[in-house]
Amino acid sequence: METVIVTDVPRADRAVVEEFSGIGAATVGEALGRSGDLGSDLRPIQQGTRIAGSAVTVLSWPGDNLMIHAAIEQCGPGDILVVATRSPSEQGMFGELFATSLQQRGVVGAIIGAGVRDTQELRDMSFPVWARHINVMGTVKNTPGAVNVPVILGGQAIDPGDILVCDDDGIVVVPRLEADDALAKSRARLAKEEATRTAFLGGELGLDRYGMRPRLQEMGVTYRRHPEAG
Amino acid sequence: METVIVTDVPRADRAVVEEFSGIGAATVGEALGRSGDLGSDLRPIQQGTRIAGSAVTVLSWPGDNLMIHAAIEQCGPGDILVVATRSPSEQGMFGELFATSLQQRGVVGAIIGAGVRDTQELRDMSFPVWARHINVMGTVKNTPGAVNVPVILGGQAIDPGDILVCDDDGIVVVPRLEADDALAKSRARLAKEEATRTAFLGGELGLDRYGMRPRLQEMGVTYRRHPEAG
Amino acid sequence: METVIVTDVPRADRAVVEEFSGIGAATVGEALGRSGDLGSDLRPIQQGTRIAGSAVTVLSWPGDNLMIHAAIEQCGPGDILVVATRSPSEQGMFGELFATSLQQRGVVGAIIGAGVRDTQELRDMSFPVWARHINVMGTVKNTPGAVNVPVILGGQAIDPGDILVCDDDGIVVVPRLEADDALAKSRARLAKEEATRTAFLGGELGLDRYGMRPRLQEMGVTYRRHPEAG
Amino acid sequence: METVIVTDVPRADRAVVEEFSGIGAATVGEALGRSGDLGSDLRPIQQGTRIAGSAVTVLSWPGDNLMIHAAIEQCGPGDILVVATRSPSEQGMFGELFATSLQQRGVVGAIIGAGVRDTQELRDMSFPVWARHINVMGTVKNTPGAVNVPVILGGQAIDPGDILVCDDDGIVVVPRLEADDALAKSRARLAKEEATRTAFLGGELGLDRYGMRPRLQEMGVTYRRHPEAG
Amino acid sequence: METVIVTDVPRADRAVVEEFSGIGAATVGEALGRSGDLGSDLRPIQQGTRIAGSAVTVLSWPGDNLMIHAAIEQCGPGDILVVATRSPSEQGMFGELFATSLQQRGVVGAIIGAGVRDTQELRDMSFPVWARHINVMGTVKNTPGAVNVPVILGGQAIDPGDILVCDDDGIVVVPRLEADDALAKSRARLAKEEATRTAFLGGELGLDRYGMRPRLQEMGVTYRRHPEAG
Amino acid sequence: METVIVTDVPRADRAVVEEFSGIGAATVGEALGRSGDLGSDLRPIQQGTRIAGSAVTVLSWPGDNLMIHAAIEQCGPGDILVVATRSPSEQGMFGELFATSLQQRGVVGAIIGAGVRDTQELRDMSFPVWARHINVMGTVKNTPGAVNVPVILGGQAIDPGDILVCDDDGIVVVPRLEADDALAKSRARLAKEEATRTAFLGGELGLDRYGMRPRLQEMGVTYRRHPEAG
Repeated sequence: METVIVTDVPRADRAVVEEFSGIGAATVGEALGRSGDLGSDLRPIQQGTRIAGSAVTVLSWPGDNLMIHAAIEQCGPGDILVVATRSPSEQGMFGELFATSLQQRGVVGAIIGAGVRDTQELRDMSFPVWARHINVMGTVKNTPGAVNVPVILGGQAIDPGDILVCDDDGIVVVPRLEADDALAKSRARLAKEEATRTAFLGGELGLDRYGMRPRLQEMGVTYRRHPEAG
Repeated sequence: METVIVTDVPRADRAVVEEFSGIGAATVGEALGRSGDLGSDLRPIQQGTRIAGSAVTVLSWPGDNLMIHAAIEQCGPGDILVVATRSPSEQGMFGELFATSLQQRGVVGAIIGAGVRDTQELRDMSFPVWARHINVMGTVKNTPGAVNVPVILGGQAIDPGDILVCDDDGIVVVPRLEADDALAKSRARLAKEEATRTAFLGGELGLDRYGMRPRLQEMGVTYRRHPEAG
Repeated sequence: METVIVTDVPRADRAVVEEFSGIGAATVGEALGRSGDLGSDLRPIQQGTRIAGSAVTVLSWPGDNLMIHAAIEQCGPGDILVVATRSPSEQGMFGELFATSLQQRGVVGAIIGAGVRDTQELRDMSFPVWARHINVMGTVKNTPGAVNVPVILGGQAIDPGDILVCDDDGIVVVPRLEADDALAKSRARLAKEEATRTAFLGGELGLDRYGMRPRLQEMGVTYRRHPEAG
Repeated sequence: METVIVTDVPRADRAVVEEFSGIGAATVGEALGRSGDLGSDLRPIQQGTRIAGSAVTVLSWPGDNLMIHAAIEQCGPGDILVVATRSPSEQGMFGELFATSLQQRGVVGAIIGAGVRDTQELRDMSFPVWARHINVMGTVKNTPGAVNVPVILGGQAIDPGDILVCDDDGIVVVPRLEADDALAKSRARLAKEEATRTAFLGGELGLDRYGMRPRLQEMGVTYRRHPEAG
Repeated sequence: METVIVTDVPRADRAVVEEFSGIGAATVGEALGRSGDLGSDLRPIQQGTRIAGSAVTVLSWPGDNLMIHAAIEQCGPGDILVVATRSPSEQGMFGELFATSLQQRGVVGAIIGAGVRDTQELRDMSFPVWARHINVMGTVKNTPGAVNVPVILGGQAIDPGDILVCDDDGIVVVPRLEADDALAKSRARLAKEEATRTAFLGGELGLDRYGMRPRLQEMGVTYRRHPEAG
Repeated sequence: METVIVTDVPRADRAVVEEFSGIGAATVGEALGRSGDLGSDLRPIQQGTRIAGSAVTVLSWPGDNLMIHAAIEQCGPGDILVVATRSPSEQGMFGELFATSLQQRGVVGAIIGAGVRDTQELRDMSFPVWARHINVMGTVKNTPGAVNVPVILGGQAIDPGDILVCDDDGIVVVPRLEADDALAKSRARLAKEEATRTAFLGGELGLDRYGMRPRLQEMGVTYRRHPEAG
């Protein structure tokens, strides 16, 4: 495992990042062609919060939060701390004291690919966290790792500086260099969803709106009345 | 996999179905002789909501929500959409746009044996959903399946038109043709629970109320003071 | 499996137990040298509640709540009911009626190493529960077990009379005879955390506060500017 | 839970059942239109064994094997014992002594939707078993259930008398009344697979054999040389 | 976490321990009144091996095998190395080199509550191992733990010197001080099983041998011919 | 999801790749600084086989093996087919017919991040496979994906042309461009392990060989005789 702390990571334009926070992870994921999602295991400890930020990544040894300390110095306004461990771990490697430091630096949230604790305190201080586990048990600070190297989390490769869009549904990663394009596609997707919503509210069916009736027929789907129907 | 859409499914009497919604899944399951529960994996995305409705069933290919579009047309007031997939899937195959269509038709909720997304929007619009996973990632519409055929979900066979009773504890299925009998038994169970509650509030013990002391003795259960007791 | 009900279990001093309830599981676990936690599987059914109490333990056969009835008589003010099963079970073996009895006796909560049901009612009556599963399905009362014997739950040995500290992060067990020492250490840990919080709010970094910079260097951790940095 | 033992269950023709044992679960499942599989959780305790037989079904309380005793009397030559539990259980509810009784009656194997034990003895006596868990721990005999009622196992409904085809890949259920049709389709599938095998051995590609090249193009799949290609 | 290495642990009589190795885990577990099993997660990496030995226990930090090195010096002929980690870990903390040292000292096997690697080499050298995971990835040696303290593994408390009986079905722990009694009960159980086997081979049913017919009737179990029976 | 098939992927030198096959995954992973492992979920369907090969990667839609057909044409001697799915899937997307095509082209094995079937036939034809699940149920061919794009599998990024070292312990990925360096380090590691093995066979302890005694002391690890020691 490499033991390096990378500094001066470029971030995407702040205004671009912030616009993602108003859109939502599912819409951005669709706009990206159904990609970038971190799966269903990383769950929010709060409800109703939607954020976007630039990744400061940490690669930690399981049961060891030494490198989170090293990472905090690399975090700034608009960032999200992203912690991956070298193998699965459930221990509570992030809590209220780290969040205090991060919030003081303008960091908007954290994604912990292991366990989090102090969950009530984190909700009370409005510091949002997504994590795999909630766990009382803490960690040691004995084994080195890396900060701001590419990490794999939730089946996605995340580079430092990539944009993370997080809400109650989960997390989507947008590569930093594709941010502008992804934002344009996300806006288009939002508009399309709004039009569909209006149509559905008016009673139009997806079957008709998307022209699915002939396709169902081609696929051999047939209609049949229930045997007990009157 | 059969590829058919069954129409004109008979439902149980609307008043009967609605009365179940006031009773709760655990009580109905007990009244049915401890049967009909869909296990502990299908969790509500909201808290404090209790519904009952008639099943419109969907059998979908994993990662594909084509048949949900076809099913919506078969849904009406008082129904619950029930989606099973042919093999386990975590993808978010149901979200706010489907819920918009369903709510417009009077559907009271959905049970998704895979993933759901747009969870905050669904809570905001008061459309209750029970699901196995919450997942940003969406689906394609390429593979046919079936609507209103019998499905297996949570270890239970569900026929279209069966009644589903859903709350924070989970889900119980009541076969359509047993609805009246199940309702009578559920009312009786409710009354029994109320009497027990009153007795327990008054300090009576289950040990005495259910005559368990002699049974414990027969089973060889003995009493012993703690060695450190004064 | 032994079939005995142990009576007259000694408890720790009530004032000591209650002071733990104001401290929180993570802090107590740290104070104990990172030990005593029951892992990440036992989750609260409510949010924002912190309790501590003396364990009344139950060892039940899976799918059978007979011994919980026998245990209630052994419970008193300030106790927490702790239920372990002889092998993994998801069934809902605890619910509102048991909670009614327990609350009437002054019991402050329950920890169920299987399933719980009536979760909305339990929240409504402010009886806090931690459990592995939420499950509609109930149990029988056919197989004996034991009350107030040592049990293993969440990878910890719990003796009757031990203190359990429970909150949103999970559960920590404090051995009864170590209660005073654990409380002193927990108070010290609280004070240390408060000082760290103040330092972090003032912008001090953990790297500096804990003297980590030289240790990182010794471990071979190096700093490197990002290749795209200006 | 119903408490009944159904006797005199009709079986499919013995010769038909036995022919399935030479075909294999995957081929039969494909022939049935990709249906009938019991998923990936029920694993064989032996390797290289392929059987088919008629289901004698058992619905047991978790941790209780009383009804298996009752079921043995209903088993005869060519049968497979199929045990489902009312909720998930890992306990070893089946072992060598049951297998001795069953083998004495001509039963060809067992499918246990919970735990099995005596696995080495079962392999030594050539009695094949598929199970969810391997577990030392045994069961009690205190709670009634049912024999030869429809059960749900591995996401499939199994009626008594249905045919089960079991091998290293898993299990497929063939409804008794569809046995002849399923056998004809399975034979056809076998022949098709044999022809494909010969073609593939000769170097033909699936892309060409199944006419996939134009379909890939229609779907927008493009070819691109690797940037480092010579 | 305590950081101590306990030396000179008393073992049970060697002849007693060795006799358990001929009996098998399931039989010993039954003889102990269905207790002592370590559940279904610790699986053997080999097939057909049955051992018994005295526990040398290790409590390790996850992802760290430092204390295994310290434990080897405490191991001698007839011992089994038992490794628990402070929180769940999948890393391969035990392999062929450790086994070489242990085998050189007469140790008969190892139980690893985390991951093992070099599985083919371990089979080749006939050093049996039971483990939760098989995993290529190794560990560091940075964090202290304990040797020969009581550990919890597989839901059981294991004291150093306790006897472990391990085979293809799993593992049972026999407390050191109960060894003689457990052996006597195990022999009696073996004899009982042999008599039952002979009876079953002769066609006697458990229903009759255990007098279950009247009990089934009392429980309300009824017999009914299948509706399609001739 | 990108829909492209990349051709003419460069491979590492064939002799280098083949030498890895004699070394073993755990040793290569250690040599790489404890990195590159694909975790504990991808298990071999055979025992005692060790291979290494160059990755031909496939990114498939869950439940759909269309792109495996497209990938076969891109495979040649010494390659390993590596299949990732866009979200978790248990379906059997690879079996004997694909293996027949691949073996005919000189491919040495397959890694399937979903389900495999025809496992007995695959063992009989000596085509080794590592997979997450074994599952009877097959797939459709309706949804496009990609061939020879970077994929994430088992928490590792795999580029087409990377080297995979696979055995009973699991899988390690060696980046193509680091192959020579990794091989040199692996040879050195092998030599070091051989020397350690000789020392351990001679009775030397790791405690002494690695100079751990003073480190344990520094960490505060103490020795204590067992209270019952003579």
